[in-house]
Amino acid sequence: MANFQKLTPRATDYSKWYNELVVKADLAEQSAVRGCMVIKPYGYAIWETIQAELDRRFKEKGVKNAYFPLLIPKSFLSREAEHVEGFAKECAVVTHHRLMNDPEGKGVVVDPNARLEEELIIRPTSETIIWSTYKNWISSYRDLPILCNQWCNVMRWEMRTRLFLRTAEFLWQEGHTAHATKEEAENYAATMLDVYADFAEKVMAIPVVKGVKSPNERFAGALNTYSIEAMMQDGKALQAGTSHFLGQNFAKSFDVQFLTNENKYEYVWATSWGVSTRLMGALIMTHSDDNGLVLPPNLAPIQVVIVPIFKKQDQLDALMEKLNPLADELKKLGIRVQVDASDKATPGFKFAEYELKGVPLRLAMGGRDLENGTIELARRDTMTKETVSFDNIVETIQNLLKEIQDNIYQKALDFRIANTREVNTWEEFKEEIKKPGFLLCHWDGTAETEEKIKAETKATIRCIPFEGDKTPGKCIYTGKPSAQRVIFAIAY
Amino acid sequence: MANFQKLTPRATDYSKWYNELVVKADLAEQSAVRGCMVIKPYGYAIWETIQAELDRRFKEKGVKNAYFPLLIPKSFLSREAEHVEGFAKECAVVTHHRLMNDPEGKGVVVDPNARLEEELIIRPTSETIIWSTYKNWISSYRDLPILCNQWCNVMRWEMRTRLFLRTAEFLWQEGHTAHATKEEAENYAATMLDVYADFAEKVMAIPVVKGVKSPNERFAGALNTYSIEAMMQDGKALQAGTSHFLGQNFAKSFDVQFLTNENKYEYVWATSWGVSTRLMGALIMTHSDDNGLVLPPNLAPIQVVIVPIFKKQDQLDALMEKLNPLADELKKLGIRVQVDASDKATPGFKFAEYELKGVPLRLAMGGRDLENGTIELARRDTMTKETVSFDNIVETIQNLLKEIQDNIYQKALDFRIANTREVNTWEEFKEEIKKPGFLLCHWDGTAETEEKIKAETKATIRCIPFEGDKTPGKCIYTGKPSAQRVIFAIAY
Repeated sequence: MANFQKLTPRATDYSKWYNELVVKADLAEQSAVRGCMVIKPYGYAIWETIQAELDRRFKEKGVKNAYFPLLIPKSFLSREAEHVEGFAKECAVVTHHRLMNDPEGKGVVVDPNARLEEELIIRPTSETIIWSTYKNWISSYRDLPILCNQWCNVMRWEMRTRLFLRTAEFLWQEGHTAHATKEEAENYAATMLDVYADFAEKVMAIPVVKGVKSPNERFAGALNTYSIEAMMQDGKALQAGTSHFLGQNFAKSFDVQFLTNENKYEYVWATSWGVSTRLMGALIMTHSDDNGLVLPPNLAPIQVVIVPIFKKQDQLDALMEKLNPLADELKKLGIRVQVDASDKATPGFKFAEYELKGVPLRLAMGGRDLENGTIELARRDTMTKETVSFDNIVETIQNLLKEIQDNIYQKALDFRIANTREVNTWEEFKEEIKKPGFLLCHWDGTAETEEKIKAETKATIRCIPFEGDKTPGKCIYTGKPSAQRVIFAIAY
Repeated sequence: MANFQKLTPRATDYSKWYNELVVKADLAEQSAVRGCMVIKPYGYAIWETIQAELDRRFKEKGVKNAYFPLLIPKSFLSREAEHVEGFAKECAVVTHHRLMNDPEGKGVVVDPNARLEEELIIRPTSETIIWSTYKNWISSYRDLPILCNQWCNVMRWEMRTRLFLRTAEFLWQEGHTAHATKEEAENYAATMLDVYADFAEKVMAIPVVKGVKSPNERFAGALNTYSIEAMMQDGKALQAGTSHFLGQNFAKSFDVQFLTNENKYEYVWATSWGVSTRLMGALIMTHSDDNGLVLPPNLAPIQVVIVPIFKKQDQLDALMEKLNPLADELKKLGIRVQVDASDKATPGFKFAEYELKGVPLRLAMGGRDLENGTIELARRDTMTKETVSFDNIVETIQNLLKEIQDNIYQKALDFRIANTREVNTWEEFKEEIKKPGFLLCHWDGTAETEEKIKAETKATIRCIPFEGDKTPGKCIYTGKPSAQRVIFAIAY
């Protein structure tokens, strides 16, 4: 049963609102293991739809799923020098392979005789184990490209965790491709970024900015990292997906060469790309409100809930004669519908629960509606109600689901536009960065300047956007030449 | 590219045949991590279909997916006394959470200052972490039943591993349900066994025997373990799925009580049930032959392959005018079809590759077929070819796919029946157990007798079957009374 203490309003404490909402809407909760979450059935149902939608898009691009080991030999992490700098530090290390009964009778203890020769790391990402595998798969240009993806769990020993946004263990997909040419690999990395952007906007209703990361924010071992960046309701940025052009770095580290069609040996070109359960955090923080979740119909586990309003069994029976066929018809159309005819909760209690859970459309029908041939329709996104004719209700529902999907996307886009500002001086920047939003600024292109700005303001470059104004200018911090404006923001 | 050295024939070395087939058919391979496999795209595509088919069946039974942590606090394993005996010994133990650069400059080493307060175990199964979670989810009978499943990876530190059959890491699903009454839990465990049996027979074309395990073979912590047992082509048994009635053991260990509708506190009743990537081993060993995989159409990633036979481009063009529309029509009907018009391999080479990969139906068309309005059809299960009219080809294919599915099931069933024997004396048993197959024998019901028989012959009781002859008799080993015959066999 949901908990109907009101959520802390966003204006009071955005962070507290988020934490409460994730738990109260039955999306996820902390587990007994520090930093590891339990994804509850309602939250997992959303994740399953995210998976299905992405998986279909990946397969359209020729990707095939596979599975690589959870554990990575410690020595693999040292193979790619930049990679180890970025990743090897905070991770779960397996050192033993056996427990034994405590000689003092206190439960079980680690068997000191079962120490592994080489420690194993729970994957924080799988480039190393995958490229050690690809070495056996690739000998000639005929074996390329390889376009593999895996859906799996990964682990990074984060010190400060928040449900979905930053957890020690999380679920994700990681694509790893191998190509014969630099150009093909670069194009593929860009293609997958487009897949992510299309998915985020069409399915999650989250507008995103596509761009390239500054060298400081690149993935460890990548030559270029592309990302999609979204603005949350508090004006902070959230990186919602990344696609990396890895050059030949991993091929060189794991000695993966192929015979070209000109009979020469060359190193293979690589990409990797991933999105994670972090998307759930982006979903919540883009659309939801003080009443609870707001879900885009395309992702809602329940798109339409139907609540008959009744006091006695015969009233219920009369209502169900209308409502059961309606539910069946909606199901046939592929609409995810639930009828709640339980007598264990009042209509008001039910309404609040479905609002909390973000069900896009709620239908309620009582005795008077039955007489009048009407039904009450409530939209979660606008929190508006209207009484409509029962006659065209199926068509009305279909249209409304589309309208809601579009509306919440447009609302988020309008918010981002309203909170994106051009800033031209350092003084202005220091003031504006205290307010929510993205700042479009000129930057001299150096890591040094980016680091200084971060040290003074906590703002980072989210991306160098692909689209928009490309006029050159002068760096807000150093006054040196800048090729184009970049996005600075405080980020999750 | 597939490797066309012939497989070692089954009659020469069944075990070698299996190992070669798994690798050559691109199903899986060993990884750089001892005992952990890489599931290759072709093998993973079969697993994805297994997942989709099972997941749909689970959801029809009201099951919802969720996700629980990979890591389990060591102390949890001591909570359920029988469970720890069965599981806690061979497992991957995480003791540290950080690496650091080696002070001597040799790559990375474990940071001795990052030792965990309590060691964490990579889940060998999740009863403990899930019941520690259910404690927070359950307070009243209104919260029951809980019917959760998770698809995930688990790890058991096996000493001798074989691809799919026994690996340190494997993929599986584990269902964990919580009920208000003993009866409901027992029924649910039985229901899920039926789901597994139906899936094994209808989708995998593997006939199975449903039954209950003897106490010796029960899951650690269960009051009863039900299983489906299949006979491999070498006459050995393979346990293909288990469903456990856990009683109140885990509820008591984790103190999970609920308020009944009579306002009393009672412990919750539990089940758990799972199948794993071991099913892939069962699939291979039930149907395949010396030419390679034989896949049931319901699981085959490619159900129909179409190979045009041509020498010049204009011949190919003429053939494709017929074959492309055919492929499109098959796709529309939901048939997984692939056209192989590549000129990089000879038809003979292609035929061998698709045989190795177990594609159920192969169509080939050459110039003469085009003139005659015919096409050549080759069945993988019977290795027979016939030339048929192109006119009704779609219907022919649809019928043949059904026929092949039925045929390989019937073949496996006939094999099991032919290799199942009633045995009535201990002398006879010792001889018969040396031959392949299941032995139906009377047993006195004691663990002692079962252990003695196992020590002398390596045979174990696979199950006490639900169906078949229920006539009482006398134990083959002790002569004591026996309620019914049980199945003894050598098992994987």
